[in-house]
Amino acid sequence: MKISEAAEQSGVTVATFKYYVREGLIPEGERLGANRTEYTQAHVQRARLVRALLVTGRLSINAAREVLAAVDSGTGFGPAFEAAQHALDSARPSDLEASPESRERVEQIIARLGWNTAGNNPGVEAAAQALDGFATAGEPVDDAYLAHYAEAAQRLARADLTALADLAGRGRSDAVVELMVVGTVMGDRLVSGLRRIAQEHESTNERKQDLS
Amino acid sequence: MKISEAAEQSGVTVATFKYYVREGLIPEGERLGANRTEYTQAHVQRARLVRALLVTGRLSINAAREVLAAVDSGTGFGPAFEAAQHALDSARPSDLEASPESRERVEQIIARLGWNTAGNNPGVEAAAQALDGFATAGEPVDDAYLAHYAEAAQRLARADLTALADLAGRGRSDAVVELMVVGTVMGDRLVSGLRRIAQEHESTNERKQDLS
Repeated sequence: MKISEAAEQSGVTVATFKYYVREGLIPEGERLGANRTEYTQAHVQRARLVRALLVTGRLSINAAREVLAAVDSGTGFGPAFEAAQHALDSARPSDLEASPESRERVEQIIARLGWNTAGNNPGVEAAAQALDGFATAGEPVDDAYLAHYAEAAQRLARADLTALADLAGRGRSDAVVELMVVGTVMGDRLVSGLRRIAQEHESTNERKQDLS
Repeated sequence: MKISEAAEQSGVTVATFKYYVREGLIPEGERLGANRTEYTQAHVQRARLVRALLVTGRLSINAAREVLAAVDSGTGFGPAFEAAQHALDSARPSDLEASPESRERVEQIIARLGWNTAGNNPGVEAAAQALDGFATAGEPVDDAYLAHYAEAAQRLARADLTALADLAGRGRSDAVVELMVVGTVMGDRLVSGLRRIAQEHESTNERKQDLS
């Protein structure tokens, strides 16, 4: 297909598509003549993944390159997933480092729930920073609250992995990483929005109970 | 107490405390002489709430004023909660408006779960924008995924409201709004971090199942 069609199917402009090629994020098309380069469905899939990494995930070009290298290494789902998680984490605005006490509390809840992790998961730092944020604001979180949050997070992760496993079953590790990036960013927003609606519902219930 | 002690107990500098007073966010202290103004525990509580609104919630001075007016109106927990939710929402970076289709899907899940909402909850727009984000990235969300997310959000909200109800039982609506602001911002980060850890756990399980 022509570059204009490949760009359209990828959801980017022709200028952006050319930029991805120039940066080596998408392989060159096959030159069929002075004014014609042929692109394939594989280019479209790669361009969609690059767009997910750069636009949705807000990764730097270099971080995107690392994730693409993991995807291309052919070692499968796991390493690409891990590379994407770490790259996404480094794209977030960095806060102060979490306190050892809060990291310890997060490690404890991981142990209590029997979660398997390699120990360098970026979520530990993020969760510990949030616990510090509650404490600094004078509203430290109790164990019951943290346990409810962890159980809800596990339910979210199970839904995420079910969706990813569906895709992985079809053998497309580029699509898996794309959904992982999109799902990480958009999933955070989705749960944030739904939680606000549920808060209103629960606060209405709460007030009814107060009156009864 | 002196302003230096009030500032310290509020977790802000004396300059910041004075700024809050100048902006009318904290009432003036009682003048006991040319060089002495007396502040009370009520000033400290108010300063902590103002700090939560401005620093943690990133509200503008004007938005903070509106929330404080709702707290001071004495109409209780509900209106202050609602004012804070809307103010927090307006402090977020605004995206494109959500599509009517995605808003409709969010309304459907609300109806299916029997959630009570007044219909203008800012979470509807946020959740609908996230659904649009998935769709734009070529990874539309199916109903099962959305339902799992909504159920997890309800579990989070129940933990939030239990913590708020504990405080409200002690009759401090300023503290309730403070926890609401801190909990909204920090709770989003907490679940985001825990979800990443749970994803790693679930993906390890997933791979084990693949091998068996």
